[in-house]
Amino acid sequence: MEAALSLSFSGEIKIGGNYVSVVRDDRQLFVSGQIPRVGDSVVVTGRVGAEVSVEQAQYAAKICTMRALALLRQELGSLDRVSRILRITVFVKCSEDFSLQSEVADGASELLQSVLGDAGIHTRTSVGVYQLPKNAPVEIDLIAAVD
Amino acid sequence: MEAALSLSFSGEIKIGGNYVSVVRDDRQLFVSGQIPRVGDSVVVTGRVGAEVSVEQAQYAAKICTMRALALLRQELGSLDRVSRILRITVFVKCSEDFSLQSEVADGASELLQSVLGDAGIHTRTSVGVYQLPKNAPVEIDLIAAVD
Amino acid sequence: MEAALSLSFSGEIKIGGNYVSVVRDDRQLFVSGQIPRVGDSVVVTGRVGAEVSVEQAQYAAKICTMRALALLRQELGSLDRVSRILRITVFVKCSEDFSLQSEVADGASELLQSVLGDAGIHTRTSVGVYQLPKNAPVEIDLIAAVD
Repeated sequence: MEAALSLSFSGEIKIGGNYVSVVRDDRQLFVSGQIPRVGDSVVVTGRVGAEVSVEQAQYAAKICTMRALALLRQELGSLDRVSRILRITVFVKCSEDFSLQSEVADGASELLQSVLGDAGIHTRTSVGVYQLPKNAPVEIDLIAAVD
Repeated sequence: MEAALSLSFSGEIKIGGNYVSVVRDDRQLFVSGQIPRVGDSVVVTGRVGAEVSVEQAQYAAKICTMRALALLRQELGSLDRVSRILRITVFVKCSEDFSLQSEVADGASELLQSVLGDAGIHTRTSVGVYQLPKNAPVEIDLIAAVD
Repeated sequence: MEAALSLSFSGEIKIGGNYVSVVRDDRQLFVSGQIPRVGDSVVVTGRVGAEVSVEQAQYAAKICTMRALALLRQELGSLDRVSRILRITVFVKCSEDFSLQSEVADGASELLQSVLGDAGIHTRTSVGVYQLPKNAPVEIDLIAAVD
């Protein structure tokens, strides 16, 4: 799936300690909020509507989503086991008058359907927040189901 | 249920493409974030605590909630099949010092109990955000259960 | 568990009306958003990165988490019945340039693991919001599973 963005996430996402990136509960998998990080660096930073454009924010949303998918694949062995993306929440760090949070979230939605097909068709909530960790412009979490 | 607000939502809510308004996973239904839209227009816009009053924001919260209920009814055939609203998250676009997010959310909570009775008694999270899609003052998503 | 913070929450958390603090759906428990309230007062208020330090915000995050655990215990009789914390969402009311939301959330994550052990290892999402109810610096909600 990384071909979509020419990025590789294989085996790269590690966090430790008292929280984790994925928790499975029976048929549901919860994925922690992802920012547009590749390796050690956040590849897009700043405030959408100010120094970050809608296009850059959509790209950031795609990277967040790729990370979430990479985590699901790592957990499940294969994305074929994902029966449905149930919910994504898209937090967009934006300027005071920026009201295109849904357009930014489209970056994530397109990628999910492109990679997962019908299983990638989800519900979503998009909101504009004041700040995000590491000055990221977008953060996305999700809940997936397996059969 | 529309009688509560003298509005009709029958068959009106359509979205297409790579995300949807409702996804069902076994006994749980996830509903996408709803803004106070009736037909093509967002009927309340602006920042709560500035140009939008608490009362107007409560009304906006009721419309968001009506939309979510209309979507559940459309999915299930009847709201009688909803056994419980599990969670609502209420995002209030507010001014810097506005701290009455819970009071705004009361508009949603009252409507849920009024329409669904005990099945409408839910958990909730209310926060104040910086912006919302289409300059909406309130956005609400929810998770429901069916028996 | 209150020993961790020298606070007592036994039988203290009551809300009434059309929403509740905990809803159980089969094996999942949803807990409403908690602010750092002890008895009738919010013990930390203000904006993180301005009048509230990271350390104070971490303490506030611990109190929110303690409240959520107290609610789970009240619902279940004992926290031993919690098999896993599935997700926490940490909303941090912050100043414009404050980007340490994850560090604030660490207060919650540490407490969960300290009280629940492996069952306390969760997924999380941390974002910076504009305002919170009652001028709280932190609000946290969670989803837990029981066996």
